[in-house]
Amino acid sequence: MTFHRAYNFCAGPATIPEVVLERVREELLNWKGRGSSFMEISHRSTDFLKLVFEPARENLKKLLNIPEDYHILFITTGTSHQFAMVPLNFLNLKPHKSADYLHTGVWSGKAINEAKRYGNINVALSTENNQFTKMCSPNELKLDSNASYLHYTPNETIHGFQFHTIPETHNVPIIADMSSEILSRPIEVSRYGMIYAGTQKNIGPSGLTIAIIHKNMAGFANALTPTLYQYQTYIDSGSLYHTPNTFGIYMAGCIFEWLLNLGGISEIAKINQRKSQKLYDAIDHSSFYRNPVQKEFRSQMNVIYYLPTVELDQLFVKEAQNNHLINLKGHKSIGGIRASIYNAMPEKGVDVLIEFMQEFERKYG
Amino acid sequence: MTFHRAYNFCAGPATIPEVVLERVREELLNWKGRGSSFMEISHRSTDFLKLVFEPARENLKKLLNIPEDYHILFITTGTSHQFAMVPLNFLNLKPHKSADYLHTGVWSGKAINEAKRYGNINVALSTENNQFTKMCSPNELKLDSNASYLHYTPNETIHGFQFHTIPETHNVPIIADMSSEILSRPIEVSRYGMIYAGTQKNIGPSGLTIAIIHKNMAGFANALTPTLYQYQTYIDSGSLYHTPNTFGIYMAGCIFEWLLNLGGISEIAKINQRKSQKLYDAIDHSSFYRNPVQKEFRSQMNVIYYLPTVELDQLFVKEAQNNHLINLKGHKSIGGIRASIYNAMPEKGVDVLIEFMQEFERKYG
Repeated sequence: MTFHRAYNFCAGPATIPEVVLERVREELLNWKGRGSSFMEISHRSTDFLKLVFEPARENLKKLLNIPEDYHILFITTGTSHQFAMVPLNFLNLKPHKSADYLHTGVWSGKAINEAKRYGNINVALSTENNQFTKMCSPNELKLDSNASYLHYTPNETIHGFQFHTIPETHNVPIIADMSSEILSRPIEVSRYGMIYAGTQKNIGPSGLTIAIIHKNMAGFANALTPTLYQYQTYIDSGSLYHTPNTFGIYMAGCIFEWLLNLGGISEIAKINQRKSQKLYDAIDHSSFYRNPVQKEFRSQMNVIYYLPTVELDQLFVKEAQNNHLINLKGHKSIGGIRASIYNAMPEKGVDVLIEFMQEFERKYG
Repeated sequence: MTFHRAYNFCAGPATIPEVVLERVREELLNWKGRGSSFMEISHRSTDFLKLVFEPARENLKKLLNIPEDYHILFITTGTSHQFAMVPLNFLNLKPHKSADYLHTGVWSGKAINEAKRYGNINVALSTENNQFTKMCSPNELKLDSNASYLHYTPNETIHGFQFHTIPETHNVPIIADMSSEILSRPIEVSRYGMIYAGTQKNIGPSGLTIAIIHKNMAGFANALTPTLYQYQTYIDSGSLYHTPNTFGIYMAGCIFEWLLNLGGISEIAKINQRKSQKLYDAIDHSSFYRNPVQKEFRSQMNVIYYLPTVELDQLFVKEAQNNHLINLKGHKSIGGIRASIYNAMPEKGVDVLIEFMQEFERKYG
């Protein structure tokens, strides 16, 4: 079969490494010579546990250098379920039953709205007045030392805004929604109470969430929390209280192996650094393209830019698609162009995009 | 690639039709000529909505003849989440805030345990004293006309016990966990307040739940129900409040098309009837194999049987596996053999199993 695989800049569900898709295709009907697909075996079977589940967990541990006092959980839900799970599990950590949230974009905003249903939520910082493109001044940060936890979203996919340092909370546990940046760069796991991430950006298809949680964080859930909304349930059962998304776990495992073969996080981080630097340079060196985000907070994963007019934005998306550069349309709430360049976007894809941008500018600039 | 595809009797995640897996393999890297996989496109894209999501919903509607006053929801969770969602959403339907549950096996038992955390749960019937193999006498059924709903599990996978008629509740809405029998035979949807089913038996891989809910049932959720535990959220957003398990929905759609091509539910029901009848006949005509379930309640999906000794059970499983008949081991709680013969198990697979059983009996009987 010959075909032209496109460079797919979709924000999520996002592109998956071609070699991983080829492996899936190869194994699809006869996985490990078992005469069945990996989708068709029990999550309780030795085959699943020893050849899929445990290696996936161990490889993630290796990739992120996760300390022994953290649990790695596989949760069969979309990421948005976490917006309720976090307050239900952690508000009780301290007597005030309150939490600090940083509001730096659409996703942290959704987390705040859901958390407010369950307790006193202090929006310690909001960049909404800056259209989520610039950080506030440090004296606008209002942290509460009595907070049970602080929640933030290191990378905001819609506005292309990313923290490059971890907020200092003075012993208040930090919960981070790393859906759109996990595995893209080294992280110091021990700085976090919990990290969670949906799989549909850097870990494969959608429908699964991974949580990395410190041992001391679990066991405080609100009494009426549904069993499958309690992190403790996943800890006690090794994430196998019920039938999980086995295909999602298999795919995550394939991605982890791909990353390890590539040289691990330090290696992909270098590639991601180069990819985003090139693209921002191309934007900054042109007066045709414009990125609105404060330079120190630009996202390495989601690069936002605008052309001089809305009509040109639209034409750009269309002509790019004709050149096998697909899903470049910006989020409907802010328009423009969004190039999501997660781990699986090859550096070549960014090079081709930049060439196309330059050609487009020559033609219409 | 040549290989011997096994007949896979796994209780779930279960076998998937070979032609469906072949289609997935074919489309995996270049779906509809788009230069990307169906896993790599946005759930908000026209491609996903028009070519995957809406056809899946419409085809399910057609297959089950679902009336207009029902919503069809795709929920990205395992089925066990429903055990909390059901009481959280429906206990408030009537002032007594109580519900009736039928306890006919492990799965209905799990639903009861979770529901008890949220309200007054009346176990209207329990067959536990009959080892979940026989129905109680009709006068043991204690229905409450003030119940907000009645919950039951038409097919219990572990004990191979299945209702072949719908309980009469006199206007109390019926909620049914049809995970292990949906699409296996015609159902009268209008008799139910809600039907729910995990996908991992008759609809594809695990990690997705489908709910079919009457319009009048939604909107009564307990005030603190997480947003993604409220059926109303899925109704209001057309099941797209957040990124769903897009691969699961794609696979469900493939299965629905496969069933329609086969002639729909009436056709698969005939095949299922033949398959289970043959297998029970083979058991009943032998004094070597024994099924403990009351005949009127035998499952068409999960056929349980025992050999004369535990050692023979084990040897049977092992020799069957050597003959490409895999995953026949009974659930650890009750031992013996379990042949799960869901829709995707070809009739030929049952024929081969019966031949193997007869040969095994000749050898060891």
